[in-house]
Amino acid sequence: MKYADSGVDIDAAQKALAGAKDAVRSTWDERVRSDLGAFGGLYRPAPGEPLLVASVDGVGTKVKIAAMAGRYDTVGQDLVNHCVNDILVQGAEPLFFLDYFAAGKLRDDVLEQVLTGFARACRENGCALLGGETAEMPGVYGDEDFDLAGCIVGRVEEAHVIDGSAIVAGDRLWGLPSTGLHTNGYSLARRVFFEVAGCAVDDRPDALGGETVADALLAVHRSYLSEIRQLWSALGRDAIHGLAHITGGGFTDNIPRIVPDGLCARVETASWSVPPLFGFLQDKGEVPAEEMYRVFNMGIGLVAVLPADTDPGLLARSGALPIGEIVAGEDKVDVVL
Amino acid sequence: MKYADSGVDIDAAQKALAGAKDAVRSTWDERVRSDLGAFGGLYRPAPGEPLLVASVDGVGTKVKIAAMAGRYDTVGQDLVNHCVNDILVQGAEPLFFLDYFAAGKLRDDVLEQVLTGFARACRENGCALLGGETAEMPGVYGDEDFDLAGCIVGRVEEAHVIDGSAIVAGDRLWGLPSTGLHTNGYSLARRVFFEVAGCAVDDRPDALGGETVADALLAVHRSYLSEIRQLWSALGRDAIHGLAHITGGGFTDNIPRIVPDGLCARVETASWSVPPLFGFLQDKGEVPAEEMYRVFNMGIGLVAVLPADTDPGLLARSGALPIGEIVAGEDKVDVVL
Repeated sequence: MKYADSGVDIDAAQKALAGAKDAVRSTWDERVRSDLGAFGGLYRPAPGEPLLVASVDGVGTKVKIAAMAGRYDTVGQDLVNHCVNDILVQGAEPLFFLDYFAAGKLRDDVLEQVLTGFARACRENGCALLGGETAEMPGVYGDEDFDLAGCIVGRVEEAHVIDGSAIVAGDRLWGLPSTGLHTNGYSLARRVFFEVAGCAVDDRPDALGGETVADALLAVHRSYLSEIRQLWSALGRDAIHGLAHITGGGFTDNIPRIVPDGLCARVETASWSVPPLFGFLQDKGEVPAEEMYRVFNMGIGLVAVLPADTDPGLLARSGALPIGEIVAGEDKVDVVL
Repeated sequence: MKYADSGVDIDAAQKALAGAKDAVRSTWDERVRSDLGAFGGLYRPAPGEPLLVASVDGVGTKVKIAAMAGRYDTVGQDLVNHCVNDILVQGAEPLFFLDYFAAGKLRDDVLEQVLTGFARACRENGCALLGGETAEMPGVYGDEDFDLAGCIVGRVEEAHVIDGSAIVAGDRLWGLPSTGLHTNGYSLARRVFFEVAGCAVDDRPDALGGETVADALLAVHRSYLSEIRQLWSALGRDAIHGLAHITGGGFTDNIPRIVPDGLCARVETASWSVPPLFGFLQDKGEVPAEEMYRVFNMGIGLVAVLPADTDPGLLARSGALPIGEIVAGEDKVDVVL
């Protein structure tokens, strides 16, 4: 099974974006400091001021798992942490977050749990929950269905922006572990768990080591803010040459976003133990290995690119694993299976 | 018929927000300069800097009309203009906008139209379309269904923030005309047009003066940025004591957001001609008059509060209509039917 078989076509969005990119760029002036495809948009309100970095996201069909399990506080945390990571990879620290919640039938207990989750993660990341919108939309969503979107704004001094341009051949790739699927690949995961394997959310399949399906699939998307702050503090702001958040598109589509032309990030997948959850999805879903690394994070939620001479002990203490290196090449990424 | 009969319960969201408000406030520090219930959140990154003003919104079930009519460019414009107005009423001018688009089945032609609409309105408002997220979510949305959310960030000097605190008894209310329903009350409007009246989107009911149902219901939410800039330019930044965007909650819920304690905005509904579209909804839907002013904008999309001695000719030239005044009172708003 491939991701498209679960009803999600990664290429369709790319095609539409390609068609609209001139229209999008026509709204830009010299204040926009990023191009299409960046994890977050960079904006300089006035010359000499720090850049604002903004990103918007959702949690995909992880909302369906929340509804199936009747547990609504973790998806808010997922979304905040996801957004924090999306601007962190450009060197920014968060200022504030705003949420959008829409449902077919508004249940105040559900919304209260969602908002409490947003607030918890905002506190943990030192980010203000500045505003939000709640919409009841009968006919667009089923009575039990809902969706979330969130927008984060952070900032960074222009000299400290991380965009991958500092990456050189010989740099090493370090991976920070994920907690699970984070917020990507849920349509495929739902298909495998609930249709192919016939699981219920309360089941404890052997492959999950005693954990329920709901616990495994609702594990909170991890924020890497504190780990990256520690590295900046120990190594200085220029030490990190590139950061890639492994979200939708997996290793295959996210790593090329930061790798300069003429270089290639060689990811040695044998260098870390892929958590059993991913093995279960691969086996039961008969998903080709290559597709797994295009859809899922495979246990690595953030990839950091650092000079070869960076103290490995320091990186190990932050939980990072050596997972590959930057070599000369045209392909930007080579996932070595 | 009341709004709740169409499946939308304005009170449910208020109840959940009340339950989560302590959690939300726990994420705030001295950088947050607004309270819950403001049209946009105010944030001061550092002392002495201008305030960032941010807001998030959707277009409600106007997305269903777009899908019924197969016309997808205007809803993007609706959302940008809505967001522009939400920060404009606090004195801010837009910097950038980010969009979220989710659908059950991603159609690249639909997404391209939506993005083109976002870009058009961003250009018109001098606002960068800085980023966005596209999600294909089978099982959350039907194949033909989609939803939009957008987030805007603008800024304003702290001395120029408009929050209604300058409003005094004797001030006059001026209304700027809307183009139609803007983005609110669509669940009720859909019920009336398509279930009660049995219309199709291409029908031209007499009450709409030759316009099709689709044209009337998809009329683009108007941005008031240029009109308010003209007033600032002619009268100075302190001349406008308060601005209320008439969105979800109509006159009844939006005007009180800016009126200080002990004062009441007396809205003389006989002072302007309510467009026939609203009369059609009221008559066919048998909607109580009071409910109409709680759900719809009734032809007035923005209410400005100005000193009694403001040159009425200047206001008339900007298209504003005199619609009432500020009096002493405890109710914040009195919609005189």
